[in-house]
Amino acid sequence: MIRDSCGVVGVIGKNASKYVYRGMITLQHRGQDSCGISSYDSKDRMFKTKKGYGLVTEVLDFENIKPLVGSFAIGHVRYPTVGSHGEPQPVEINYPMQGIVLAHNGNIANYKELKRELIRNEFGFGTEIDAEVLLFTFVHELMRTYNDINAITNLMNIVDGSYSVVMLTGKEKMYAFRDPHGFKPLVYGKNDDMFMIASESAALDTNNIKLLGDIPPGGLLVADMNGYHIHQLIEPHQNSCVFEYIYFAHPESIIDGIEVKTFRERLGKILGKKHKIEADVVCPVPYSSNPTARGYSKESGIPYKEGLIKNQYMGRTFIKKTQEDRERAVSLKYNIVKSVVKDKRVIIIDDSIVRGTTMKKIVKLLRDNGAKEVHVIISMPPIIAPCFYGINITSYNELAAYNKTIDEINKEMVGADSLHFAEIEDLYNAAGTHKLCISCLTGEYPTQKANELSNELKQNGGKTGNGNRPWEE
Amino acid sequence: MIRDSCGVVGVIGKNASKYVYRGMITLQHRGQDSCGISSYDSKDRMFKTKKGYGLVTEVLDFENIKPLVGSFAIGHVRYPTVGSHGEPQPVEINYPMQGIVLAHNGNIANYKELKRELIRNEFGFGTEIDAEVLLFTFVHELMRTYNDINAITNLMNIVDGSYSVVMLTGKEKMYAFRDPHGFKPLVYGKNDDMFMIASESAALDTNNIKLLGDIPPGGLLVADMNGYHIHQLIEPHQNSCVFEYIYFAHPESIIDGIEVKTFRERLGKILGKKHKIEADVVCPVPYSSNPTARGYSKESGIPYKEGLIKNQYMGRTFIKKTQEDRERAVSLKYNIVKSVVKDKRVIIIDDSIVRGTTMKKIVKLLRDNGAKEVHVIISMPPIIAPCFYGINITSYNELAAYNKTIDEINKEMVGADSLHFAEIEDLYNAAGTHKLCISCLTGEYPTQKANELSNELKQNGGKTGNGNRPWEE
Amino acid sequence: MIRDSCGVVGVIGKNASKYVYRGMITLQHRGQDSCGISSYDSKDRMFKTKKGYGLVTEVLDFENIKPLVGSFAIGHVRYPTVGSHGEPQPVEINYPMQGIVLAHNGNIANYKELKRELIRNEFGFGTEIDAEVLLFTFVHELMRTYNDINAITNLMNIVDGSYSVVMLTGKEKMYAFRDPHGFKPLVYGKNDDMFMIASESAALDTNNIKLLGDIPPGGLLVADMNGYHIHQLIEPHQNSCVFEYIYFAHPESIIDGIEVKTFRERLGKILGKKHKIEADVVCPVPYSSNPTARGYSKESGIPYKEGLIKNQYMGRTFIKKTQEDRERAVSLKYNIVKSVVKDKRVIIIDDSIVRGTTMKKIVKLLRDNGAKEVHVIISMPPIIAPCFYGINITSYNELAAYNKTIDEINKEMVGADSLHFAEIEDLYNAAGTHKLCISCLTGEYPTQKANELSNELKQNGGKTGNGNRPWEE
Amino acid sequence: MIRDSCGVVGVIGKNASKYVYRGMITLQHRGQDSCGISSYDSKDRMFKTKKGYGLVTEVLDFENIKPLVGSFAIGHVRYPTVGSHGEPQPVEINYPMQGIVLAHNGNIANYKELKRELIRNEFGFGTEIDAEVLLFTFVHELMRTYNDINAITNLMNIVDGSYSVVMLTGKEKMYAFRDPHGFKPLVYGKNDDMFMIASESAALDTNNIKLLGDIPPGGLLVADMNGYHIHQLIEPHQNSCVFEYIYFAHPESIIDGIEVKTFRERLGKILGKKHKIEADVVCPVPYSSNPTARGYSKESGIPYKEGLIKNQYMGRTFIKKTQEDRERAVSLKYNIVKSVVKDKRVIIIDDSIVRGTTMKKIVKLLRDNGAKEVHVIISMPPIIAPCFYGINITSYNELAAYNKTIDEINKEMVGADSLHFAEIEDLYNAAGTHKLCISCLTGEYPTQKANELSNELKQNGGKTGNGNRPWEE
Repeated sequence: MIRDSCGVVGVIGKNASKYVYRGMITLQHRGQDSCGISSYDSKDRMFKTKKGYGLVTEVLDFENIKPLVGSFAIGHVRYPTVGSHGEPQPVEINYPMQGIVLAHNGNIANYKELKRELIRNEFGFGTEIDAEVLLFTFVHELMRTYNDINAITNLMNIVDGSYSVVMLTGKEKMYAFRDPHGFKPLVYGKNDDMFMIASESAALDTNNIKLLGDIPPGGLLVADMNGYHIHQLIEPHQNSCVFEYIYFAHPESIIDGIEVKTFRERLGKILGKKHKIEADVVCPVPYSSNPTARGYSKESGIPYKEGLIKNQYMGRTFIKKTQEDRERAVSLKYNIVKSVVKDKRVIIIDDSIVRGTTMKKIVKLLRDNGAKEVHVIISMPPIIAPCFYGINITSYNELAAYNKTIDEINKEMVGADSLHFAEIEDLYNAAGTHKLCISCLTGEYPTQKANELSNELKQNGGKTGNGNRPWEE
Repeated sequence: MIRDSCGVVGVIGKNASKYVYRGMITLQHRGQDSCGISSYDSKDRMFKTKKGYGLVTEVLDFENIKPLVGSFAIGHVRYPTVGSHGEPQPVEINYPMQGIVLAHNGNIANYKELKRELIRNEFGFGTEIDAEVLLFTFVHELMRTYNDINAITNLMNIVDGSYSVVMLTGKEKMYAFRDPHGFKPLVYGKNDDMFMIASESAALDTNNIKLLGDIPPGGLLVADMNGYHIHQLIEPHQNSCVFEYIYFAHPESIIDGIEVKTFRERLGKILGKKHKIEADVVCPVPYSSNPTARGYSKESGIPYKEGLIKNQYMGRTFIKKTQEDRERAVSLKYNIVKSVVKDKRVIIIDDSIVRGTTMKKIVKLLRDNGAKEVHVIISMPPIIAPCFYGINITSYNELAAYNKTIDEINKEMVGADSLHFAEIEDLYNAAGTHKLCISCLTGEYPTQKANELSNELKQNGGKTGNGNRPWEE
Repeated sequence: MIRDSCGVVGVIGKNASKYVYRGMITLQHRGQDSCGISSYDSKDRMFKTKKGYGLVTEVLDFENIKPLVGSFAIGHVRYPTVGSHGEPQPVEINYPMQGIVLAHNGNIANYKELKRELIRNEFGFGTEIDAEVLLFTFVHELMRTYNDINAITNLMNIVDGSYSVVMLTGKEKMYAFRDPHGFKPLVYGKNDDMFMIASESAALDTNNIKLLGDIPPGGLLVADMNGYHIHQLIEPHQNSCVFEYIYFAHPESIIDGIEVKTFRERLGKILGKKHKIEADVVCPVPYSSNPTARGYSKESGIPYKEGLIKNQYMGRTFIKKTQEDRERAVSLKYNIVKSVVKDKRVIIIDDSIVRGTTMKKIVKLLRDNGAKEVHVIISMPPIIAPCFYGINITSYNELAAYNKTIDEINKEMVGADSLHFAEIEDLYNAAGTHKLCISCLTGEYPTQKANELSNELKQNGGKTGNGNRPWEE
Repeated sequence: MIRDSCGVVGVIGKNASKYVYRGMITLQHRGQDSCGISSYDSKDRMFKTKKGYGLVTEVLDFENIKPLVGSFAIGHVRYPTVGSHGEPQPVEINYPMQGIVLAHNGNIANYKELKRELIRNEFGFGTEIDAEVLLFTFVHELMRTYNDINAITNLMNIVDGSYSVVMLTGKEKMYAFRDPHGFKPLVYGKNDDMFMIASESAALDTNNIKLLGDIPPGGLLVADMNGYHIHQLIEPHQNSCVFEYIYFAHPESIIDGIEVKTFRERLGKILGKKHKIEADVVCPVPYSSNPTARGYSKESGIPYKEGLIKNQYMGRTFIKKTQEDRERAVSLKYNIVKSVVKDKRVIIIDDSIVRGTTMKKIVKLLRDNGAKEVHVIISMPPIIAPCFYGINITSYNELAAYNKTIDEINKEMVGADSLHFAEIEDLYNAAGTHKLCISCLTGEYPTQKANELSNELKQNGGKTGNGNRPWEE
């Protein structure tokens, strides 16, 4: 399992920050490390910001966001990574446009080059997060072109990587745009009271807002108090991150027209057809694999049962405190339902294998509780390459599947009676489209800079000095 | 839904506090308000204690419990109640027996009278938690009888209410005892490395410890480095709290010989036989009702689907911060799976109705998401009386079902197309025994003091000045 | 007594932030509310900032400032005011000049007008502190003139009020400038290892740096790794704030050529010559009045004794927590030396009377401890007008001396056997110059906007809606 | 300089905890590490306690002590020691006497033996502070004798060391007693509203309470709502700790009939007569040496000037954070008054030399600021032996003066032009009595256990494994 990504929200409407806050709670699964809200008020013409480290409900509450007045607000939740320098977003600049705040989900592959160029052009950096590069690039282009649409178009031509951005200016305009590949999701919707942008439609549901659609790859949405327009700025080449469907996104969310839960169920059925296993029960690793296991069960006829119960109270804190011993965490995180697994041939379905430590421990727990056989099915094909678009896989060496056969993975890392992976074709079939980014499964990247970085990594023997951004010194 | 109860753990074995800590994490569902561990070390002959407010993983971690050295340790997790004075446990006294620490799950009905008598006998109180009354009663009887077994026997004759207690002395003995009705669970088990006592067997599973059995009602277990013995001190009248099976306990736990999950599934089948409803889908309110809904589905043939997705990140903090507006919390806590409920006739199953506000909001959310009909089935019969044995129902007036017909409850509080409750007989059938405490369903109590308190409450018109312990001034 | 003002520090040299930190500790008396350091590192070309609320040693320490690497750093300590919105400084902007950070001591009288104009010119505000107005005004002028010297010259012509500023850019230049009246102090110095700017020379002493001089009123100092230059940008009209000499500044500091301690001693002698009182002992209110009382003693021959002992441990925290009852604080803050005052005729010298509550309580304490007579001498003449240049006197009505004779003040507010104030002439004589700002003693202001604000206040009957900046709505 | 000791306060009167709190603020100089208050209320017959780490005004305030209701309260401030296990006081036991709370100033020399014996008698320990040994010894003796007076008499015969204790029981009685040598101060007083016990009379002054006297060595004061009585339980051998007069105590306090400030001034005069030095100015290290330097000045005619200014804002926090570099702290803690010392022959007076690091740094600072000569006079004779009665000197090796001549001390540790120490005779003369404890100056101890511990230490080559209590393993 991998934890990564971020979530963004933007609202135009009365008490905007309140609804941004509600959306952020729903998007909490996209990032538990830090969060923040910036609002803009037309009366005193000022930005108000509140940011901090921790869960949304730890940092913010309905009381302490009351000063974040105004009809414009954006918010951000950030993924947890060890040892990162990443400050909470939104990032801000006080000039021009009477100030701009920006929140970003994604990863900039040519961060280093862009930063160098921006410094040359009189910009100064106060953080190491790539949201600042996006913001300053926009400002830089704006000051050259005096035209906001052109500035974002230029940005899209310059910036290599994934970015789903929401941006708010003191001129009372909200911008939402998405890189030409649309790696990361970004949707919009409205009801009678407000207009909303969010990483996932689940955040709209929570606020009872009707989903109107996705910001198109290479597209820009501009909104103000009077309405919104969508502009296609760059030719789109849609490559939605397959990990969003497999693991990240809320099962209720609809991303680029595909409901996450439906994708998972369809994939389960496909796996059921392909990997026929003599077994008594099929169990998901909760919760991302529940629909997949249900699909597998329907197809295979093997009963679906919840054989692992997840401890609801073991959050971020615990994981942070005990990162020196993640295996220990696994046995506290899941209780095995003995009556389900005892003396049974068990199929266990999980979303992915990155380092392999978690699945090894789960197989052991199942055997300790009397499982006669343990068969493992993984919804993702083997991950054999790092991601430069936002998933926290940053080197070759850490990957369980790198330069290994499935048999070797099973023997060395998992220890199951049999181990099965989905294939890329299965993902396409489940999605009903080939418009997916599967770079981490192939090692081929749809953008130039990512390919360069991948080659550098390989030449370094797969090693990286910086866990967070290996392509920097 | 109701949140209440506590959890206790005791371990004899090397690094005892570490395994107590692991057990407490697994019992976190029994109390998220505060927690604590006390250990005793044979080398320096000292007690070490660490207590605090918050989740187990917030207050304690593998690092900060390292000073809690020794082969003896007990721990406690406490339920959250608004405005309570309850300090974290274990409670302690430094004399006699080279010191005693005690952790308690339950509620003492004659707390006030006992406290008055203990003060008369030179005891001084520093908290308002009833664990102190239990501890001092034991010490008082011990000083009269010079005999630990007699002291606990006397305690059982004197103390009215529920108590499942684990107690540790500086003489390196651990005691576990349970009131004669066995209202609250208490089990024990061992493996090669340690001996363990816990509120629920799930805590044993986490530590890979074999469950040996329940402490019998009116029974005492005494353990030290050499082994353990069980003594029956008082004639048992077993009345296991039915709410433990319905809601509190971990589904994997086995309480007084009955597996919680099995109870819930059986009850679901019974309800499916009794309440035949024309519907398209049956959904649980996660997670306590999942097995019940599954049972109902099997019996009725109506497909089981997860129509509500619970936000895993909205913990204690949020609820505390927004208790002035619990309805708001419901819509953030659950996302509705539109594809499951839209244009469907939905059966929704929840464990209980106390005040009724949550279910009302859920019904509304389902209708907002397009449910054609919403039928509600509640696993508990109507709660018509307060509990004096540990459930946080402390007055008649707060009860949705008090002096109301089911139709009235539905109209005034729920707003479903139909509303159904389990009956007491159903609970007996699901449990396979009549040995259950169902006082909150009948208003009749198995102990004298509880009946007196109930009469007092009724004469006060159901009102109470103190939300926590209404039978005190 | 009044607490107010701020302190600024800037260093060029290896590990600059460490010496800024040391300087801030020494300038802590200038502000205990919040503090912050920004550093700039030539290697990664990034600003690092750490800010927070509290004492310097609470917010920062030698450990947590280690990430503030680089050879350029500035710091700020902020005065405490009740109910202010003031965020900690330095403030920052990321464009142009590769970023700029700024720290400011003073008060901008035409804040409101400047802010309005800056918003019109595409600047957006994120705080309510006037440092942001200074920073954006500089940036605005810079973008019009493309010349840093001209930008600051323009700023001096536009901004009305007091400002002693230190500013650092990503182009590795440090700027220090002071308004044309030089209300607030600003000095510079150097040793073999570093160049330093600070509000007071005491901060240089702590770092063993030789004081070279004051930044002249209307002057600018520009420094980089190669050295420094001073430019006179505007014709100077020196009006050093008399309160700095009387109360604010460290006694060891030399401000505009006058040593604070010497000023106080001279003033004490002048008062001794003028106010001859039959008394047995002269006592200061520690510590600001110690030199004054010593001067008085020398002149009068009445022995100097420390009759009040100040509790060293009652800091900011206590005052904040008990602001509803400042009188209570006085008796905890000072212990009376009974042997010094009992049966004695006591002269007590304090720096100033603003509201009068403190002195009233001190007189009572002295009488309670047996003082036969209590005579009060105040080093400042009666304060009869608000300050718009940085002292926290913001309305007429709060002033004990407003529209009152000395006799009335004594009767209503102090209750001494006699009450004496210094006169303006005395201050001039003590300073050896007339180049002092004495606006709060005369109600006449050396800048236009301050005079306007004063008139507005008077027309409002001396009332103000905003304790912090009464001249705003 | 040394920081050590503790302070205790007890009050009987309405809102007792409020006045205890005020007294604790005044006694803050006796301990900045932790603090606590326990109160007892006759109405609900319960103890309420609030304890924590930090300054009194950090841990407690008028708001958060409001729940500490009742007419009986005791409080404690604790000295800071590095690496100690010491929990905040008061300590408590819930039986007998309806509970007892106790606060203690001093140090128990036979702590280890007493603890062992108490454990043998069924007491269990939860802390490592000697207050628990005192409390349990009292309880133990009380249970043997059924007589409170006899119990304390026995305690005085058993416990070796220093103890000034205040104790409160649930029977609404307050006890204050002092070891037979009266090492540590303990006074009492009353006014119309309340009765008060405190470590120092300064705490009485703050509450406007008349000092009635000292608890005699070996004496017990018992107080309740009706009045108080003093009993002499043991033959007294008064040995008041000389360090209290020299350094610890508030200058305004009167301890065993001697005013601290007067002692210091007299000592200053004696030193002035003995150590005649050609110098231009005599400066104290503030604040403990101010009266001493004043006395020296009067005798010698050399002018008294404050040449060091102490930073009022560098508290506990800073010292804790930078204990790895105390020398660095010295230069931030003191600013040198250049005009006082430049080109001058300076006499600097400090209270004591323990490790010598501070004085070395001060001498250097004075020379850096232009002092022509620096002569150091120390009010205490060389400290050549550890203290077992409460001063934080716990080994021979750490002492600058151990096995060294004054010349060696000066050369190796101080670096002054001349170094002078007071002699024991001088202390006797300043005090006007020989009834002082001077063990740390002689290595001879008035109690048996201390002599044994001293011998053990010497045989260990002056080494100790435990910084806090070297005489334990």
